[in-house]
Amino acid sequence: MTTVPTESIEKSKIYLMQFDKTRSQTLELVQPLEKEDYVVQTAFFMSPPKWHLGHVSWFYEVVMSKIDSNYKFFSKQYSKIFNSYYQSMGEPHDKAKRGILSRPTVDETMAYFFTINKKVEEFLFNLDSEEDFELFQLAFNHEYQHQELLVYDIQHLLADAYNPVRRNNLPKLSPVEKKSIKIEEGLFVMGYSGTDFSYDIEQPEHKVYLNPYLMDVFPVTNGEYVKFIEDGGYRNFRFWLADGWEAVKKNDWNAPMYWERDESGVWIRHDYRGRQMINPNEPVCNVSYYEADAYCKWAGKRLPTEAEWEKAASWNEDKKIKTIYPWGNESPTEIHANLLESYLWAPAEIGSYPEGKSHYGCHQMMGDVWEWTSSDFVGYPGFKSSFVEYNDKWFCNQKVLRGASFATPRLSIRNSYRNFFRPEERWMFAGFRCSEDI
Amino acid sequence: MTTVPTESIEKSKIYLMQFDKTRSQTLELVQPLEKEDYVVQTAFFMSPPKWHLGHVSWFYEVVMSKIDSNYKFFSKQYSKIFNSYYQSMGEPHDKAKRGILSRPTVDETMAYFFTINKKVEEFLFNLDSEEDFELFQLAFNHEYQHQELLVYDIQHLLADAYNPVRRNNLPKLSPVEKKSIKIEEGLFVMGYSGTDFSYDIEQPEHKVYLNPYLMDVFPVTNGEYVKFIEDGGYRNFRFWLADGWEAVKKNDWNAPMYWERDESGVWIRHDYRGRQMINPNEPVCNVSYYEADAYCKWAGKRLPTEAEWEKAASWNEDKKIKTIYPWGNESPTEIHANLLESYLWAPAEIGSYPEGKSHYGCHQMMGDVWEWTSSDFVGYPGFKSSFVEYNDKWFCNQKVLRGASFATPRLSIRNSYRNFFRPEERWMFAGFRCSEDI
Amino acid sequence: MTTVPTESIEKSKIYLMQFDKTRSQTLELVQPLEKEDYVVQTAFFMSPPKWHLGHVSWFYEVVMSKIDSNYKFFSKQYSKIFNSYYQSMGEPHDKAKRGILSRPTVDETMAYFFTINKKVEEFLFNLDSEEDFELFQLAFNHEYQHQELLVYDIQHLLADAYNPVRRNNLPKLSPVEKKSIKIEEGLFVMGYSGTDFSYDIEQPEHKVYLNPYLMDVFPVTNGEYVKFIEDGGYRNFRFWLADGWEAVKKNDWNAPMYWERDESGVWIRHDYRGRQMINPNEPVCNVSYYEADAYCKWAGKRLPTEAEWEKAASWNEDKKIKTIYPWGNESPTEIHANLLESYLWAPAEIGSYPEGKSHYGCHQMMGDVWEWTSSDFVGYPGFKSSFVEYNDKWFCNQKVLRGASFATPRLSIRNSYRNFFRPEERWMFAGFRCSEDI
Amino acid sequence: MTTVPTESIEKSKIYLMQFDKTRSQTLELVQPLEKEDYVVQTAFFMSPPKWHLGHVSWFYEVVMSKIDSNYKFFSKQYSKIFNSYYQSMGEPHDKAKRGILSRPTVDETMAYFFTINKKVEEFLFNLDSEEDFELFQLAFNHEYQHQELLVYDIQHLLADAYNPVRRNNLPKLSPVEKKSIKIEEGLFVMGYSGTDFSYDIEQPEHKVYLNPYLMDVFPVTNGEYVKFIEDGGYRNFRFWLADGWEAVKKNDWNAPMYWERDESGVWIRHDYRGRQMINPNEPVCNVSYYEADAYCKWAGKRLPTEAEWEKAASWNEDKKIKTIYPWGNESPTEIHANLLESYLWAPAEIGSYPEGKSHYGCHQMMGDVWEWTSSDFVGYPGFKSSFVEYNDKWFCNQKVLRGASFATPRLSIRNSYRNFFRPEERWMFAGFRCSEDI
Repeated sequence: MTTVPTESIEKSKIYLMQFDKTRSQTLELVQPLEKEDYVVQTAFFMSPPKWHLGHVSWFYEVVMSKIDSNYKFFSKQYSKIFNSYYQSMGEPHDKAKRGILSRPTVDETMAYFFTINKKVEEFLFNLDSEEDFELFQLAFNHEYQHQELLVYDIQHLLADAYNPVRRNNLPKLSPVEKKSIKIEEGLFVMGYSGTDFSYDIEQPEHKVYLNPYLMDVFPVTNGEYVKFIEDGGYRNFRFWLADGWEAVKKNDWNAPMYWERDESGVWIRHDYRGRQMINPNEPVCNVSYYEADAYCKWAGKRLPTEAEWEKAASWNEDKKIKTIYPWGNESPTEIHANLLESYLWAPAEIGSYPEGKSHYGCHQMMGDVWEWTSSDFVGYPGFKSSFVEYNDKWFCNQKVLRGASFATPRLSIRNSYRNFFRPEERWMFAGFRCSEDI
Repeated sequence: MTTVPTESIEKSKIYLMQFDKTRSQTLELVQPLEKEDYVVQTAFFMSPPKWHLGHVSWFYEVVMSKIDSNYKFFSKQYSKIFNSYYQSMGEPHDKAKRGILSRPTVDETMAYFFTINKKVEEFLFNLDSEEDFELFQLAFNHEYQHQELLVYDIQHLLADAYNPVRRNNLPKLSPVEKKSIKIEEGLFVMGYSGTDFSYDIEQPEHKVYLNPYLMDVFPVTNGEYVKFIEDGGYRNFRFWLADGWEAVKKNDWNAPMYWERDESGVWIRHDYRGRQMINPNEPVCNVSYYEADAYCKWAGKRLPTEAEWEKAASWNEDKKIKTIYPWGNESPTEIHANLLESYLWAPAEIGSYPEGKSHYGCHQMMGDVWEWTSSDFVGYPGFKSSFVEYNDKWFCNQKVLRGASFATPRLSIRNSYRNFFRPEERWMFAGFRCSEDI
Repeated sequence: MTTVPTESIEKSKIYLMQFDKTRSQTLELVQPLEKEDYVVQTAFFMSPPKWHLGHVSWFYEVVMSKIDSNYKFFSKQYSKIFNSYYQSMGEPHDKAKRGILSRPTVDETMAYFFTINKKVEEFLFNLDSEEDFELFQLAFNHEYQHQELLVYDIQHLLADAYNPVRRNNLPKLSPVEKKSIKIEEGLFVMGYSGTDFSYDIEQPEHKVYLNPYLMDVFPVTNGEYVKFIEDGGYRNFRFWLADGWEAVKKNDWNAPMYWERDESGVWIRHDYRGRQMINPNEPVCNVSYYEADAYCKWAGKRLPTEAEWEKAASWNEDKKIKTIYPWGNESPTEIHANLLESYLWAPAEIGSYPEGKSHYGCHQMMGDVWEWTSSDFVGYPGFKSSFVEYNDKWFCNQKVLRGASFATPRLSIRNSYRNFFRPEERWMFAGFRCSEDI
Repeated sequence: MTTVPTESIEKSKIYLMQFDKTRSQTLELVQPLEKEDYVVQTAFFMSPPKWHLGHVSWFYEVVMSKIDSNYKFFSKQYSKIFNSYYQSMGEPHDKAKRGILSRPTVDETMAYFFTINKKVEEFLFNLDSEEDFELFQLAFNHEYQHQELLVYDIQHLLADAYNPVRRNNLPKLSPVEKKSIKIEEGLFVMGYSGTDFSYDIEQPEHKVYLNPYLMDVFPVTNGEYVKFIEDGGYRNFRFWLADGWEAVKKNDWNAPMYWERDESGVWIRHDYRGRQMINPNEPVCNVSYYEADAYCKWAGKRLPTEAEWEKAASWNEDKKIKTIYPWGNESPTEIHANLLESYLWAPAEIGSYPEGKSHYGCHQMMGDVWEWTSSDFVGYPGFKSSFVEYNDKWFCNQKVLRGASFATPRLSIRNSYRNFFRPEERWMFAGFRCSEDI
C-alpha cells in the first residue's frame, strides 16, 4: 500500500467529521419513532423510515464499489431491497411495495447502518484521490436529501401523533411591510461555478436574458391562501391548468394537504404540532404546482421562472463574487433561515428572518418552504451528466422548486440548488411566491 | 343485582375456562413474531397480525354491547380500525389499507387485548341468560376462525423466514392402498341438528337426494398434482373454466401458491419448514377452486358436492346418532386428525390418520387441508339468519370448502362446518379430493 | 358420393325451412338500424349488431368445418374477429374492443352473411348423418340466443331512439288476484329427457328433494319494486349481499337500469317505447341478481331455487308426460306467452296470459322477463359435456335464470332451459318472482 | 341596422372565400370514408371522424354566440357531444367515450355541418368589427388544426386499409450532403410580432440568449433510427429518461408506432401507402418525445430547445424583416415544403426541398414531420391569454414541437407556431432533429 500524502490525511479527517455528523443527524431524526413506525408505507409516494436508513447506507456501498472493484456488498438481498431506482445496480424492489417487508427488522437494519459506518470510516481514512473524495461528498449530499425526505415521510406517517423536540423558539418578528420588488431586465448569469460540491444539474453557469419583473418580498401565506379558497378557488375551473382541474376533481382537493375544516368552519392543520388552527402569517405549505399556479392566476400574478427566482435570491447583482448568500461561503445559520438544524418543525412566520434577506430585498427565499417555479426541470445549456442515473434521468414531467424547507439540512443548500417534483405532488414542504410582468 | 343461579355459575366457569384457553392460543400463535411482523400487510387479501389481535378483541366488545346497552367501547378509533366488515357497527377502515397504520403500536394493541380480557371475564362471571352465553360462544368461535386466518397470514408474511416450534412428529404411517369408494344413492339428511354451538348456515337439517357416486379415499397429493403440471395442465385451456383460464393468464399461474421450480427443474415449496422439495405424499395445498376443478377435468373426474362430501365423511350411515365422528360428541384429537393443536404446521402424508377414517372408509376428511366442493355457498332450504352480517351476506360468488386444515383449532370443527372462499383465492390451506359419477 | 336416403331428404327439407326462418328473423331484427348503429359498442358487456351478424354466420362455418374436415373458412381475419370466446378456434379478438373495428363494413358483413347462407343450404341439402343434423340444430339454437342478445344490445344502444314496429296489441287482461301458491314437498324429477334438441346442461334428468314452499303467482312488478325503492331499499346495507352492497356503492345504483327520476319525482323508463312513466303492472325488468335478492330480503321472502322454479312451472305434477307446457310438444304461441314473435318489445302486464298458466297455477313463468333463481350455474349430477366450450366452461360465478323474456325466440324455449348471467349484470331482460319457506 | 362600410365588405369577401376553402378541405379529407369509419373510436386518444365534423362546426357556433348574445345553438345535445374540453361551455361528453354514439348519424352530422355553413356565411356577410373578424380567423385556424388531427385519426383507424388519392409525385431529389451547421451565440428575438393571425402563445416577441450550437441539416431518418434499434436502443435503460423507460416497459415499445418486423426481420410500416418496407431516406415519424430523447442520447447529441429551433429555421439572421420564410409573407408552397395540400400522405425523403431551406441552411424544418424540442410548453415572458381555454390551460406536462407535418394545412403555418403534445404520445406525425453543444 502506498503512503497517503499529508494533504489527503487532512482531508480525510474533515470528511470523517462530516460523515459522523451526517450519520448522527439521520439517527436523531428517527429517534422518537416506534418500531412499528419504521416499517409502514402510508402511500405509494412515501417510503418507510426503515427503508431510508437502509438506502442511504447502501448508497455508500455503491460508492465504495466504484472505488474498489473488489468491494463485496453486505447482502444481495439488501442491495435489491434498498436500491431505489438505479437500474445499473440491478432491478430494484418495487417502490410501491416497500411497506410489505417486515424483514430485515429494524434492529437488523440498524446493524447494517452501523456496519456500513465502520466500512466507510476505513475507506475515508485511506482515501487519497480527489475523485474518490468527491464520490463520498455525493453520498453525504445524498443522505442530506433523504434526511429531508424522512421528515416528509414521518409527517405523512404520523402527523399529529408525532412530537419531536422543538429546540428553537420562533425568531423574534421584525415589523414587515408586504410588497413586491422590481428587478431590472438584462442578462443574468445563472448556475453554479464554485469549487465546492454541487450537483451536475446546477452547472454550467450560463447567460439568461430576463425581462423586467416584480418579485414578491414574501411567500404566499396561509392567510392569503384562505382567501383564495373562500373565493371558490377550488370550484372554478378558470383558475386551473387542464391537468390541475383533473387533479382537483379526481382527488377531491379543496385545500392544501393536511388541512381540514372543523365543524365550526375553521381551517385546521395536522402536523408535528398536533391539530391546530392555521397560522395566517406562515407561508402556505404542502401545495401542488397546480394549486400554486391556480392561486397566481386568481391573484392576477404568475409564478417566477427559476432564473427570475435565482436572480431575486442572489446576494449581489453581478454575481462576480461567487458566494450568493450574505454569509459568504458558509451556509446559512439559524439567524438567516429556518432549516432542519433549527428544529422548528414548521415554517416560520413571514418577516422572521430579516438577516437573511437577499440583495434585492426578498425575505425567506431560503428555508421554511420550497418554492415552486414555472420552469420545467431540464438540463442547462451545455449540461454534462456527472452522476449516472442521479438527476438527468428525471428531465421530464417535473417542475423545479427553489430555496429550501424547514426540513432541509443546512450543509446541503446552495442558491443554485434545483429541487424537482411532479406537479401533482404535495407531501413535500412546498409553497410558492408570486411574481409579475411589468 | 339479581342472584345468579347455580346452574349459570357452573356454566360461567366453563366459559371462563374456554375463554382463557382461546385467548392463550391466540397469543401463542403470534409469540414468535417480531414487532415489525405485526404491522405489515403483504397483499390486499391478507391482514397484519396486529389487526387480528385487535379485531378479535373488538368482537367481544360488540357482544358485550349487545348484552349491555350501556356498554362503552374502549375507543372510537379502535372500533373503526378493528371492524372488519360490519356495516351495522359503522363504516370500517378500508381492508386493503390495514397495513398503513403503525399506531396503535403492538404494545398498545396488546394492552387493548388484555383490557378486553378483563372485561369479558367480568361479564362471563355474571352471565345468566342462555342467549348471552350463546353470543359469547359465537365470539369464541369467531376467534377460532381468526386463529386460522392468522396462520395463513403469517405464512404469507414470512414463509421460509418463520420457524414455529413443531411439537409433534409426523404420525406413523399405516400402509395404505389408494382407491375410491362407492357410495349408494338415496336421500341423505344433511346439516347440523345438535344442541352445541354451530353456525346458522349449517342449519336446518334437510333432505338431499344423491345419485350413487365414487369418492376418493384420499385428497389429491402433490405427487399427483405434479403430473397434471407436467402434462401441460396450466397451458391447456380445455381443462379450465372460462374464469379460471382468465385467472391463469392474468396471474401467470403455473403451480400452486408458494411453489417454484429451482434451476434443476425440481419443485420447491416455501413454508414454515423453509424451502424444501415438495413431498409427493402430502395433500396438495394452496390451490384455487379453478385449479382444483381443472385437475379434476384433466383426471376425468369431478369435485364432489358438499352433500356428497358430508355423507362420505359421516360416521354412520343413517346419521341417527347425531355425532358424526368416531370420537362421539368430542372433537377430534391428535390421533384422529392433523389440526392446529398438533402444531405440525404442514399437511400430513396421506394415510397418517387411520384412526380418523369415516364410516365409508375415507381418510383425512378432517384436518390437513380444506377441501373444495363444487357447491356454491348459499343458504340451506329453510335457512334463518341468526347472526347479523356474519355469514349470509356472503351468499354469492363463494364456493364451499369442507373439512378443516392443519391450522384449524380443534374446538371449532364439526362435520357440518361450511367454510367458504372465492374461487380465485389461494392463500388459505385448501386442497381437494375427487369424486366420480357411476 | 353415396345416395342420400329418403328419410334424410325429408329431414333436410325441414332443416332448410328452419334455417331460412332463423336467418330471416335475424335480419328482421336489425332492419330498422342505421349503418352507424351496427358498429358502435356502448359498453364492454355489449356487442355491436354487426358483430352478432358476423358471429352467428361464423358459427355455421365452425359446424361445417366439423362435418367436412376440408372445409375452408371464408376469411382468416373474419374468423378472428367473429369468434366470441372459443379458444379451440384460435385466440379471439378482444371482447371489449369489438367497437373499434369499422371494417369489415356493414355491407361486407351482410355479404358474408349471405355467402354463408348459400354454403349452409348446400350442406343441409346433402346431409344424412343424425349427428351432423344435430350440429346444425345447435347452430340454429345458437342463433336464437344471439337474436335475443341483439335485442338487449339494441336497447342499450338506442333506448328511446329506436322504434321497432310493434305488431301485437297487449293481450286482453283477465282479472287477476295476486297471491302465492303452496307446493308440496317431495322428490321432483328435474331436467330434460326428451328427444328434441336441448343443451347438454339441461341433462340428465335427476331427482331433487324439495321441502314444501310457496311460489308467487306473478313476477314482482314495477309497482311493487317502487315501494322497495321508496322504503330506502338502495340505501340500507341490511337488505344486501356483501358483493351487492359493493356494487350499489360502486355503480351508484338507485333503481333498475334504464330508470331515472324526472324533476317531479316520477319514475321514467327509457326503452323501445321511448321515455315513459313506468307501468306499475308490468314485471320489473333489467335488475341484477343483487337487486332481486335485496328485494326479497326486504319483502321477507326469498328467491326460488331453479328446481323449485321448474316444478312450479311444469305442466303436470309427475311429469310423466314429458311435455311440460299446455301446448304439448309444441312451443308456446302468442296466446300463451310474450316472446319475440309477439313483437311486443316490452314485458306484458301481469295477468295477460291466463292460457299459459302452469299446473300449479303460476302465471307468466315463460316470456316477459327471465327470472333470477338462487341457484348457481353448475352441472347437474351426471352431467356430460356435449358441446366443446359451449356451456360448461361457464360453471362458476354465474346464477341461473329461468323462463324467457319478450325477446326470446319461440323455438328456442323449453321449461328446462337454463339461462345464466353474472350476478351484477343488468342489461338483459331479467326480473324475478319470490318464493317462501313454509 | 347600420350600413356596413366598404372596407368591411371587402374583408367579408375574403373571409367568405377562406371559409369556403376551409370547409371544402375538411370534406375532402373524409370523402373516401365509409359511414362505419366515421363513428368508430380506435383508442382513447383518437376521435371518430364524425366527431371532428361536428366539433369544428360547433366551434363556429361558439364564435357566433360571442358575437351575438342572442345566438341560439343548433341543439343542446350536439353542444354537449361536440364540445371537446371547454368547461365554460358546459360539461363536455367524456372524451374516451366519443365512440359509443351512433347518433347523430353521419347524415345528420353532415346536415349540421351544412346548416352551420349557412349561418356562418350570413354572419360573415354582415361583419364589421375587427375583433369579430379575428374570432372567425381563430375558428378557421381551429379547423386547420382539426384537419390535421383528422389525418392522424384516419391513419390510426385504417392504416393500410385507406387509400387516399395521392396527387403529387415525390419532388425530384437534389444531391445532399448530410452534416450539421454551426450557429453563433447571442441574443435572439423569438416569437411572433406580425399583424396577421397568430395564437396568443406565440407572443410576445422576446429576447433569448443562446450559446453557440450545432443544428443538424436534416431530421433523423428511418435509416438512422433503425441503427439505434439494432444497437439495442429499446433494451438499454441508459439511453432513457426514467419516465421513458417506464413507457417502454409498460407498452412493450420496440420501434416507432405503425412499425413491425416481418418474419424475415425486415422493418415494415403500415400507412396510407399500405404495408411497405420502411424507406431509409424518409424522416422517422410517429415517435414519442421519450424515443426522440433516447435516440439523441445514444447518438451523443441532444434535442434543440425551441429557441434554437426557431433561430435555425428563420429566414434571415436578425429577423428585421418579419417574414421568416423565403416566400415572404406568403405561406410555403409545394416547392418549399411537404404540407397537406401536396397530398403526398407521407414524409418526403430528406433533400427533397432545397427551395425551402432556411437562412442557416437547414432543410425541411417546415413540413414532413413535426419536430420535438426539449422545451416544455409554457407561456413566453409577458404572455397574455387571448383565447379562453384555448391554449394556456395546457401549460403543463406538454413538450413543444415545431415545424409542421405532411398533414398540416398550408394556411395555418408560421415559423413561430408552437405545437404541443404529451411526451408519451405517438399517433401524431412527429419526428425530430438533433443539435449539439459546441
